[in-house]
Amino acid sequence: MTAPSAYIERVAKEFSKLPGIGHKSASRIAFYLLKMGKNEVESLAASMIDLKNNIKRCIKCGGISDLDICSICSDSGRDHRTICVVESAKDVINIEATDEFKGIYHVLSGLISPLDGIGPDDLNISSLINKCGTEALDEVIMALSPTIEGDATTLYLASLISPFGINVTRIAHGLPVGSDLEYVDCATIAKSIEGRVKI
Amino acid sequence: MTAPSAYIERVAKEFSKLPGIGHKSASRIAFYLLKMGKNEVESLAASMIDLKNNIKRCIKCGGISDLDICSICSDSGRDHRTICVVESAKDVINIEATDEFKGIYHVLSGLISPLDGIGPDDLNISSLINKCGTEALDEVIMALSPTIEGDATTLYLASLISPFGINVTRIAHGLPVGSDLEYVDCATIAKSIEGRVKI
Repeated sequence: MTAPSAYIERVAKEFSKLPGIGHKSASRIAFYLLKMGKNEVESLAASMIDLKNNIKRCIKCGGISDLDICSICSDSGRDHRTICVVESAKDVINIEATDEFKGIYHVLSGLISPLDGIGPDDLNISSLINKCGTEALDEVIMALSPTIEGDATTLYLASLISPFGINVTRIAHGLPVGSDLEYVDCATIAKSIEGRVKI
Repeated sequence: MTAPSAYIERVAKEFSKLPGIGHKSASRIAFYLLKMGKNEVESLAASMIDLKNNIKRCIKCGGISDLDICSICSDSGRDHRTICVVESAKDVINIEATDEFKGIYHVLSGLISPLDGIGPDDLNISSLINKCGTEALDEVIMALSPTIEGDATTLYLASLISPFGINVTRIAHGLPVGSDLEYVDCATIAKSIEGRVKI
C-alpha cells in the first residue's frame, strides 16, 4: 500500500489515539479537516492547546476550573451546606446537566481500589473531612458509581463523616428511566426493591 | 447548569463539529486530552495545522499529495498504462489498502449530478481525456459508487474514452463478502446475477 500523503496519515494516527475513534473514523476526520476552512482547523487546534495550558484544579472542590476557585464553588447563589461527592470532574458536568442539584461538589479524583493499589491517601479525601469539621454542612450526598469500588468508598467516607453529625446520603440505585424490567439484571432489580419509595 | 470550565466546553464544541463525534463523545475527548501529556496534545494540534498548510493536489492525478506529484504517480514501479478512475482522494486510500491494484489513479473530485448542478465541466475530466489522447494506455477502470450519479458518470466517461481504443472496465457490483443472501436487496442480487462469472 502506498500512502499518497504523510500529513493525512499523521493526522489519522494522532486522532485514532483518542477514545471512541478507530482507524476508519480517524481517516474520515482527516479528510474532513481538508475540507474545513483553515481558520476552523486553527481554532480546533488552539482550543486543545489552550485547554492544556490554562486549566487548573479548583482549590476548594478539586474539580477542574479556569480560575483558582471554580465557578460553582464561587457561586454564592448555590447551597454551600450541601456537598455532592463525585469520582471525577466529568461527573460534575453530568450532574449539572440534570439541573437537579443546587449544592456544591467535592471531586475525589478516583475511588478506593485495593486491587489497583489505590487507598484513601491517594484520593482527595482529607480536604473533604476537613470541610466537614470546619464548615457548617447539612448533608453530604455520595454520588459514586454502584460498583464494588464505588460502594466501598461510599461506606468508608460515610464512616468518617457521620461522627460530625452531618447527614450522609447516597443517590438511588434502581431501574434506569425508560428501561424494560425484562432486560434489567437481578442485582439492579434487587436494589430497586430494597430502595422502594412510598407513592 | 454551570460549566466549571470554559476551556473544556470550547474543546468539546470544536470536536463535536467533526464527523461521527456527538456531544457526549466530544466531552469525553475533552477530558481525555486533560489526562494526555502536553507533548501529545501539541503533536495532535500540530498535525492538523501541518495538514492544512502543506497538503497539495497532485498535478497528474488530482489526488492529494505532499509534493507537486503524488507518490503513486511518481512511482515508476507501478503500471502507468492502467488508470483507475475514482470519485475522491479518500477512495485512493481505500483501494490502496486492498493491495490489489498496481496501476495509477485519476481523481474526479465528484460525480456528475444534474440535480446538484454538477456537470462534466465541474469535475477533473478534461485532463483524463487529455491523458487518453496523449499517453499509451491499456485500460481505464471505472471505480465509482454504484449509484445513479456514479453509473451516469461511468457511462459518460466510457463514451468519451472508448473512441481512443482503450479498454474501459468497471469494478464488479454484487454481494459484499460475508453478506447473507437473505438480507441483500433485490437490485444487488440482480446485479450479481447479471455479472456472474464462470467457476
